[in-house]
Amino acid sequence: MTLRLSASDSDFEDRFSALVEARRGADEDVARDVAAIIADVKARGDAAVADYTKRFDGFDLVEGGWQVAKQRSCMALDGLDPALQEALALAAQRIAAYHEAQRPADSDTTDNAGVRMGARWSAVETAGLYVPGGRAVYPSSLLMNAIPARVAGVERIVMVTPARGGQVDPLILAAAEIAGIDEIYVIGGAQAIAALAFGTGTIPRADVIVGPGNAWVAEAKRQLYGTVGIDMVAGPSEILVIADGNNDPDWIAADLLSQAEHDPTSQSILFTDDAAFADTVAEALEAQLSGLATGETARVSWETNGAIILVETLEDAIPLSNRLAPEHLELAVADPEALFAQVKHAGSVFLGRTTPEAVGDYVGGPNHVLPTGRRARFSSGLSVLDFMKRTSFLQCGDAALEAIGPAAVALAEAEGLPAHAKSVAMRLPQR
Amino acid sequence: MTLRLSASDSDFEDRFSALVEARRGADEDVARDVAAIIADVKARGDAAVADYTKRFDGFDLVEGGWQVAKQRSCMALDGLDPALQEALALAAQRIAAYHEAQRPADSDTTDNAGVRMGARWSAVETAGLYVPGGRAVYPSSLLMNAIPARVAGVERIVMVTPARGGQVDPLILAAAEIAGIDEIYVIGGAQAIAALAFGTGTIPRADVIVGPGNAWVAEAKRQLYGTVGIDMVAGPSEILVIADGNNDPDWIAADLLSQAEHDPTSQSILFTDDAAFADTVAEALEAQLSGLATGETARVSWETNGAIILVETLEDAIPLSNRLAPEHLELAVADPEALFAQVKHAGSVFLGRTTPEAVGDYVGGPNHVLPTGRRARFSSGLSVLDFMKRTSFLQCGDAALEAIGPAAVALAEAEGLPAHAKSVAMRLPQR
Repeated sequence: MTLRLSASDSDFEDRFSALVEARRGADEDVARDVAAIIADVKARGDAAVADYTKRFDGFDLVEGGWQVAKQRSCMALDGLDPALQEALALAAQRIAAYHEAQRPADSDTTDNAGVRMGARWSAVETAGLYVPGGRAVYPSSLLMNAIPARVAGVERIVMVTPARGGQVDPLILAAAEIAGIDEIYVIGGAQAIAALAFGTGTIPRADVIVGPGNAWVAEAKRQLYGTVGIDMVAGPSEILVIADGNNDPDWIAADLLSQAEHDPTSQSILFTDDAAFADTVAEALEAQLSGLATGETARVSWETNGAIILVETLEDAIPLSNRLAPEHLELAVADPEALFAQVKHAGSVFLGRTTPEAVGDYVGGPNHVLPTGRRARFSSGLSVLDFMKRTSFLQCGDAALEAIGPAAVALAEAEGLPAHAKSVAMRLPQR
Repeated sequence: MTLRLSASDSDFEDRFSALVEARRGADEDVARDVAAIIADVKARGDAAVADYTKRFDGFDLVEGGWQVAKQRSCMALDGLDPALQEALALAAQRIAAYHEAQRPADSDTTDNAGVRMGARWSAVETAGLYVPGGRAVYPSSLLMNAIPARVAGVERIVMVTPARGGQVDPLILAAAEIAGIDEIYVIGGAQAIAALAFGTGTIPRADVIVGPGNAWVAEAKRQLYGTVGIDMVAGPSEILVIADGNNDPDWIAADLLSQAEHDPTSQSILFTDDAAFADTVAEALEAQLSGLATGETARVSWETNGAIILVETLEDAIPLSNRLAPEHLELAVADPEALFAQVKHAGSVFLGRTTPEAVGDYVGGPNHVLPTGRRARFSSGLSVLDFMKRTSFLQCGDAALEAIGPAAVALAEAEGLPAHAKSVAMRLPQR
């Protein structure tokens, strides 16, 4: 049964805390299996990748080939329904426009002491892009991951995706073509992540690996963080809707279901100040569920992880939302700005009654790869910065070194690092 | 014996590749011990932390108290040698000035379709700052970690540091006072990192944990990445010096030793185009080593991990440097700008003969917490951004949703996500 809470309940704090602390979809056994796969790929390279691909994907890389021929993507795009072609192109163009504005500025200044300092941003050389196989075919995710890399100026984007019977879904290939990806390998799972992290005879080593995946993929990225850069530790998706009683309950029910239909571990939470509205949303949701092709998944998600929480005023919902730090936050109210001003922790916010979260999943512009599992407390959605790094620099002439060097010598000596002190002191005028 | 290579050697590529791929200071046994400590602290909280502190630090938290009284820091600063007080204050002021310029700008735009979108940056609420105990007393690191958090606007900075006999070094307390840190707990090791990641009865939960530490501390941060934000996966320190024959060999020798004296696993590498200069640097280094208080450590580092590499021209050194992606890169040449333009991967660059790396360790301004172990390929030094996160937002009015919504509906249907499609389609005018 879907959780129903009211902020006026005497046990509200305990029950809400339990909701905040709940861990969805955790599986500690996966870690051991993934560690073994990583070690094997590190040691045996291509041979290990081919073995796992045969075992897990039922595909023989040696016979079937590792790479998707470039013309296959081109043909897939040509063969696509024109309305879908246009939709993908619009999405790509809007995502690119939003992310162009994220390109960071270099700095180069000289201060009063004559010390020149600054920072220069540059793109990583190679980005690895994981695209899940299986039933989930999400060209939108491909665009959301690949386009920021392109905008950052990454020279080489290497895509990996598990192929059922050696076939990659045409919709994925079409999106890859739109994103300008020329290099696609039909491998998946933890073995694909390990291959990208270390490089093998066939698979180039990536500097950064991004993209969603199942529990094995996510765990492999987590374990290889530090060997390679990763986008984030991802968990099940979630939405938090704050809605007053003046919304169409059908709209809000659809919004809650749009998250629930992703996965049984997804989470949809409604905050409202109107008890009657809460009831009508629950009824509308039930009615929509029965006609939904994804209804089975959505029902499990809604009944297991969903919640309707009654608050006295909508302002009361904001500190509770900040504790949940949701991936997606909808403010379905007449004046969303006032509530938004109090939002501290959220991945992405959707303002007003006519901004359903799903429009942002596809064509809004901002990235849909967002921190989950309360991680919006400390992390951000995917951006151009995830594909770039900053090199700082410093330049002292004689006068500048004379101005600040003695302090460095004093501190180095106090820290018991005489060679540090000496390397500065030797360059100062002798006194 | 220190490695000597020449780019003209027939086996150069093999031997240089080995240098690039070498892993220094790795210890896979540590991971298991750390995992056990983390699980125990998660389960038992304060009691586990107190047990490990008694066992590893020989300090009884229950008797001796968990926290350092505020007035102790104040007194430590007052009692400090005035020259050191001034040096710390200069360092703090310069670090703050450099990092102020890193504060990111928010964005808020409305495009031709009438879609409003943007991003808002905000600071994490609580930052955990690890300060190592033991022989290494580095107030400079405390400033480099704490000041960016302050500049970011972090409300609560919680410092942890293991205390020998319950005492924290006065130099550390003085630096904490200058950095404005009011909350210091005398705990360390993996148990301190775990306590900050989960929160315990006594230790507040941090959103981000930063600061250097030994192998246990580094591994605990790595394992808890995702539960909490961390600065980076840190490894042994390194310097790469590119120097022509017109440098004072004593200066360059001191620069190489300033890295070597940190730790036996540190790495110092000299690239030069002048074989005679290489020899005089090696001799100068030997001469300095014998008189150095840190000579024992520096000698092990230099002989085990150091290298002198002869290249035909200094330009030839740059692609090799890019493969090493050094933490620190000194360009000790007359025109450093020309070489710097070709540098792709480096944590921080020091331009010209009178900019020793050590001045940047203390008072330059840029952060000295930098990516090591080839990680400058994909990551950056510590910055204000490590203590902030970005919340994106989107707002569609009726007309804007009508402009972009149909594409979202088409893509959602193609992805087999009918509730996504429905949540948008319901809000569009009926056709």
